[in-house]
Amino acid sequence: MNDYLAELLEICGEDDGEVADYIPELATADPDRYAIAIATLDGQVYSAGDADVEFTIQSISKPFTYALAITDQGLDGVLEKIDVEPSGDAFNEISLEPSTGRPRNPMINAGAIEAHALVAGDDADGRSERIVELYSRLAGRELSVDEDVFESELSTADRNMAIAYMLKTVGTLDDDPAEVVRGYTRQCSVSVTVEDLARMASVLAANGVAADGTRVLETSVTRQVLSVMATCGMYDAAGDWLTTVGIPAKSGVAGGLIGVLPGQVGIAVFSPRLDEHGNSSRGVRAFERLSADMGLHLMEAPESARSVVRTPKSQEEGRPSVHEVAGDLRFIEAERVLRGLEGEPEGDGVVVIDLHRVHRIHDVARRMLLEGVRRLRMDGHEIRLVDPDGLLPDPDVDVSADGSGDQYTPEVFDDLDTALAP
Amino acid sequence: MNDYLAELLEICGEDDGEVADYIPELATADPDRYAIAIATLDGQVYSAGDADVEFTIQSISKPFTYALAITDQGLDGVLEKIDVEPSGDAFNEISLEPSTGRPRNPMINAGAIEAHALVAGDDADGRSERIVELYSRLAGRELSVDEDVFESELSTADRNMAIAYMLKTVGTLDDDPAEVVRGYTRQCSVSVTVEDLARMASVLAANGVAADGTRVLETSVTRQVLSVMATCGMYDAAGDWLTTVGIPAKSGVAGGLIGVLPGQVGIAVFSPRLDEHGNSSRGVRAFERLSADMGLHLMEAPESARSVVRTPKSQEEGRPSVHEVAGDLRFIEAERVLRGLEGEPEGDGVVVIDLHRVHRIHDVARRMLLEGVRRLRMDGHEIRLVDPDGLLPDPDVDVSADGSGDQYTPEVFDDLDTALAP
Amino acid sequence: MNDYLAELLEICGEDDGEVADYIPELATADPDRYAIAIATLDGQVYSAGDADVEFTIQSISKPFTYALAITDQGLDGVLEKIDVEPSGDAFNEISLEPSTGRPRNPMINAGAIEAHALVAGDDADGRSERIVELYSRLAGRELSVDEDVFESELSTADRNMAIAYMLKTVGTLDDDPAEVVRGYTRQCSVSVTVEDLARMASVLAANGVAADGTRVLETSVTRQVLSVMATCGMYDAAGDWLTTVGIPAKSGVAGGLIGVLPGQVGIAVFSPRLDEHGNSSRGVRAFERLSADMGLHLMEAPESARSVVRTPKSQEEGRPSVHEVAGDLRFIEAERVLRGLEGEPEGDGVVVIDLHRVHRIHDVARRMLLEGVRRLRMDGHEIRLVDPDGLLPDPDVDVSADGSGDQYTPEVFDDLDTALAP
Amino acid sequence: MNDYLAELLEICGEDDGEVADYIPELATADPDRYAIAIATLDGQVYSAGDADVEFTIQSISKPFTYALAITDQGLDGVLEKIDVEPSGDAFNEISLEPSTGRPRNPMINAGAIEAHALVAGDDADGRSERIVELYSRLAGRELSVDEDVFESELSTADRNMAIAYMLKTVGTLDDDPAEVVRGYTRQCSVSVTVEDLARMASVLAANGVAADGTRVLETSVTRQVLSVMATCGMYDAAGDWLTTVGIPAKSGVAGGLIGVLPGQVGIAVFSPRLDEHGNSSRGVRAFERLSADMGLHLMEAPESARSVVRTPKSQEEGRPSVHEVAGDLRFIEAERVLRGLEGEPEGDGVVVIDLHRVHRIHDVARRMLLEGVRRLRMDGHEIRLVDPDGLLPDPDVDVSADGSGDQYTPEVFDDLDTALAP
Repeated sequence: MNDYLAELLEICGEDDGEVADYIPELATADPDRYAIAIATLDGQVYSAGDADVEFTIQSISKPFTYALAITDQGLDGVLEKIDVEPSGDAFNEISLEPSTGRPRNPMINAGAIEAHALVAGDDADGRSERIVELYSRLAGRELSVDEDVFESELSTADRNMAIAYMLKTVGTLDDDPAEVVRGYTRQCSVSVTVEDLARMASVLAANGVAADGTRVLETSVTRQVLSVMATCGMYDAAGDWLTTVGIPAKSGVAGGLIGVLPGQVGIAVFSPRLDEHGNSSRGVRAFERLSADMGLHLMEAPESARSVVRTPKSQEEGRPSVHEVAGDLRFIEAERVLRGLEGEPEGDGVVVIDLHRVHRIHDVARRMLLEGVRRLRMDGHEIRLVDPDGLLPDPDVDVSADGSGDQYTPEVFDDLDTALAP
Repeated sequence: MNDYLAELLEICGEDDGEVADYIPELATADPDRYAIAIATLDGQVYSAGDADVEFTIQSISKPFTYALAITDQGLDGVLEKIDVEPSGDAFNEISLEPSTGRPRNPMINAGAIEAHALVAGDDADGRSERIVELYSRLAGRELSVDEDVFESELSTADRNMAIAYMLKTVGTLDDDPAEVVRGYTRQCSVSVTVEDLARMASVLAANGVAADGTRVLETSVTRQVLSVMATCGMYDAAGDWLTTVGIPAKSGVAGGLIGVLPGQVGIAVFSPRLDEHGNSSRGVRAFERLSADMGLHLMEAPESARSVVRTPKSQEEGRPSVHEVAGDLRFIEAERVLRGLEGEPEGDGVVVIDLHRVHRIHDVARRMLLEGVRRLRMDGHEIRLVDPDGLLPDPDVDVSADGSGDQYTPEVFDDLDTALAP
Repeated sequence: MNDYLAELLEICGEDDGEVADYIPELATADPDRYAIAIATLDGQVYSAGDADVEFTIQSISKPFTYALAITDQGLDGVLEKIDVEPSGDAFNEISLEPSTGRPRNPMINAGAIEAHALVAGDDADGRSERIVELYSRLAGRELSVDEDVFESELSTADRNMAIAYMLKTVGTLDDDPAEVVRGYTRQCSVSVTVEDLARMASVLAANGVAADGTRVLETSVTRQVLSVMATCGMYDAAGDWLTTVGIPAKSGVAGGLIGVLPGQVGIAVFSPRLDEHGNSSRGVRAFERLSADMGLHLMEAPESARSVVRTPKSQEEGRPSVHEVAGDLRFIEAERVLRGLEGEPEGDGVVVIDLHRVHRIHDVARRMLLEGVRRLRMDGHEIRLVDPDGLLPDPDVDVSADGSGDQYTPEVFDDLDTALAP
Repeated sequence: MNDYLAELLEICGEDDGEVADYIPELATADPDRYAIAIATLDGQVYSAGDADVEFTIQSISKPFTYALAITDQGLDGVLEKIDVEPSGDAFNEISLEPSTGRPRNPMINAGAIEAHALVAGDDADGRSERIVELYSRLAGRELSVDEDVFESELSTADRNMAIAYMLKTVGTLDDDPAEVVRGYTRQCSVSVTVEDLARMASVLAANGVAADGTRVLETSVTRQVLSVMATCGMYDAAGDWLTTVGIPAKSGVAGGLIGVLPGQVGIAVFSPRLDEHGNSSRGVRAFERLSADMGLHLMEAPESARSVVRTPKSQEEGRPSVHEVAGDLRFIEAERVLRGLEGEPEGDGVVVIDLHRVHRIHDVARRMLLEGVRRLRMDGHEIRLVDPDGLLPDPDVDVSADGSGDQYTPEVFDDLDTALAP
């Protein structure tokens, strides 16, 4: 895998564009650095190139701070202050919604500064600390601010000062604009490697659950963050990026670029030269290649889903029929289980529904499953559930033909072997 | 399932807004009609409400005609004429890109009219015929134009006339504007039911493959169409829709609304009263509920993916170890297979990799799988592949420690039983 | 004078830009034609160059048709349909005001088409006839449509078709869009020479009075037309034009360009090559030169105004003192008369106020003049008015110190000699 | 006159709107204050109402500081930094020109802040001092800063801070943004009465010459300033204002409003309640009334101009014929003189051209006058010039029919009596 990544770096190695120079300290970066990393949901990280070189996170911090703001203020509280619509963020526009003064979305500077200010904390330092703390948890190691870049960036933060004062003017920002810009600049100056970024991205891919199984962010939060990355993450080329690469992403002016495949992986590339949109030139190229090679496009349906339900192919006469289900059980999967159950011939045979590899059962799926149980029972079957985690509590079903309320409760087992015992 | 849909209609039954009245014939529609349908990739359709009432497809035709335009002209040919960026389509703007004159995207009228004109055909009638033909294939039955609505709509098509003449002016449109508007109006007047629409949407969800297994559109085409629906499908509320509902969608002024879950289902709702964005009021409400109930949000990762690789839990001493893989094999799945293989203890035992339930192996995954074979071999194992469909051709691997080029070729079997035979 | 104009043509003779080619018939024009004309308010016309070459009036027709629309519908009726705000008229925008759908102003195509439709007339032909009739009266000779240009222009009127259909869509236009564009194209195809245009412009400069003394347009109409020309006449360079040239103006795509100096002259230049704004290149240069040479800038105050009041310099003892006033009597002039009258020494001498060269007395000026009469009387003077045209009717003044109402009526004469007779 | 103004205040006395409250100190203003003043070019000031109440100049300072910036940097230097195009200055836009970063015009805050920074001065204090000095010369008395308003306004100057930082960002502003905003706020806090403002406006009306005859600003500067006021002075209602009122104007948030009639008067109104555009409600109403009553509309030609040339009506046989000219002699006036001269019967009579009441002769007029002299001479006349100020130097003309170069030099006199002496 690492070989593949190294090869990818070579294939997409041709570089162009310029290192960002409006922040003096960034201009000193070695423009030839190049690295890539991919992190799986369970913590495996593959990388190639200058994977241990540190650089500042810059705008890649935006989705993560937005996540923290939502966690602290609730989604509605944040939506009152920051909209979620795409916006061509032209150089001298601030992109506030005319009627409300809300920044168009949290991926442009106005929205990101606002999101920073919405993070709970007694003051600028308090906010910055909580933010670095979150990033550290996401990256799985303690991160810190690059003080040289911070000082250099703060001294040239005129545009962000303009934005913060404008937010204050329209009543969207309560705090002192200069203080907020100071805190936001610290957030942008956190030092990371591509491996850190890939890990951070992978937590978004895992609905907020870290590789060690602990929950860092709520699913409702990561869903919101990824939706916004999908439509607003790549500046004015959002539509182009989504069609060609199809991966929710965010880039930073220091050359970083992350992508998130929900349920699959977090990806990060680092290469300081930027294209005309301000995105890492080689980073963009690497993502295009990755998307094509790996079939990672969000809108290209993996066909794996068809196979998570394993209905018995050949059954021995008289033996219980086993329907094994795995993964998340949503409408689509439950519908397949149901169709499998409908294939059972009428009779009094035993039907086992094995749920021990299921992680979660959505509400609709639960109702559909119980409907399947009811029908099997009315056909004369005995039903056994393997449900060690109690994902299907109170599996009682009404089996009266006339609505008189007769109940049937299938027996529940902890493992398949016990369920299969005669 | 149908019960659930009926219940959903009831829950989201409160209605508001107004029936579109700028087309006289539409204003005569019964505003209380209400229907929903869901179609699975393999052709199962569930529905509730007025599922057999016909109405005109209107703007829901846009993604399908765009698909046909790409098929006819190639993606690059279409991108030259129509951009893919989101756009607030204000009432008197035509939303052409200033520098090129391209419509912003194919979901606004300017882009849809352009896409119509890009469909191959000798003349307006030829284009219309090919378009109705495609819709019919997608819906699985022969569709036709509602001539009353067509005449009524053509007589009030001033805005589309304005747009077509403007496209002609900027050089984007070659044909006679009035003729193009005539053809486009026919396209919008095709008569459908919610079940038709759900089936049409399900083909997009299936990467272009119809329920009967025939390919109607290329995967690269449906990927493009869905990406554009995700960012531009719901007019100026695109960001809001993607965050809250998270389903690529398209609405029509007659009250139709479709949604596409890649790899899962196609959904359609019908209710004529429209909200202030011009989307079906109850339709939007039904989708919000569906998304929440069914866990259908595009950015909420199903965890099922984790389970498509089944590594042996308990193995008997001396028996072959079986690694079964299912579905599409992309990077993420191959990575899991590899990790399973790495769990094999060193030794000369037989390891079976069962690919008979795999549909497709992406390039990267193929290379990763072969790397796994190579390593097992160098550890001393004998490897057997179950690959009846030849998805892994030429599975030779170089097993020389010194690069001298020694090759090893695992044996390939048609089914697991044979592979397990001693 | 003609020599000066010939010299001016030579000085500003360097040419660049391109002849408009989107109308095939215009592209055949001889690009080297060059002419200039200046018309005084009383009908004197000076010219140089190709002064008898005919070309089509094109957009220079806009202010005149706007004037006719106001005459026919009243100013309020027209303002309801066409706004008067400046607008950068970008190539694919139609510049309608978002909240009302009104075209931004009558100098852009949308507003000009709307103005054309507001002209009274039974049908398109009726409107066109009345328009050509007005132009003919303004030019002082019978004008007609260049049918070749008309046909050529109509066949390429896609943009105007787009605009007219859009106006229909937003409810601003009642008539059939195609018919209105036909009529508007006829209006643009009226054939003129620079001398015609200079004469037409001079009527605007004369508050609507033709050189022969007949009124063609109301003063309130020409005031409105000139105001709009000042801010909206030169496309997106309106501010630049007003600061550097300072003359309300309008250009046409066939190479014509008119300017109006209120109270002074009408000017026209013709040279077909256009600059990047679509204005005649040499035409713009000639106006810049004219403005500088002749001191014609609207914002540079002529000091002549100071001199219209002639107060007696040296008066013989015992002879009546004569105050002669000329021209329009507004606040500023009346204020000077008053100060002259205040210079009269107390006593019972005769003071003659000679108004025989006054054209009009504004309301405020009338009151001020009567106040002057009252004061002179209270100082003991006898006042005689020379007012053959009765511009100061009922010149009674209250001369009671205590408000008891004593009236004094100065004697009124028809000429100065009679007034001076002892 | 003062009575008329008092009456005007009463007629336009109905008030609505709200006092500006975003600057706390302004909110304490007595909302019922109401005053008007008119200043003639020679220093006469008429006023009514609260004419001695002081208030802060606010945005009315913009045209005067713009004038100073042009004086200091030259017009080209200022145009490089500030454009002159109209702009709807929406609340959260900064209105910079996309391609250059220039503020759209000097009447919006961005342009005014930029103009302030372009005033010469070692530092913020130096600039502020020179600005107050200019205002004092224009008002004819020493003005000073209202320190309470200044402090209050500076503490709420978030929007201007935003603008100044944005100007810094785009490279238009060189100085420290916070310092520039400090200086600009001082400029806005200069304390004035309506009489001060009327006097300041009257200097603009007089091409930059104060009532005492000293030149304060160049004519080219006041011409530029007035042009910009005409198109950009009244915020987003510029077109509406120019058509209905027709007077270049500027309003301030403290309730002041000035208007300038080139060559005529300066006008000022004060009333703190503002309409929805931010302009003084009663101020706007008073101007509308003034414009109608007094015939002050810029685009309504005064007819006085026709009369500045006095040609002899009845001439005694054998007596010299006298042509008297007054005021500025531009093309239009010279043309009339010429036509008068052409009326002279052929013969050897004496023709006197009396220029003693002329202020200035433009270049074209000089050449036209000499042409008149030449023709008279060739007809046989003797020509005498009354030109005590030497406005027509070297009046030699070539009178050879064959171009042989014969010169004729008319005799020049200091007064008419001498010229008429036999």
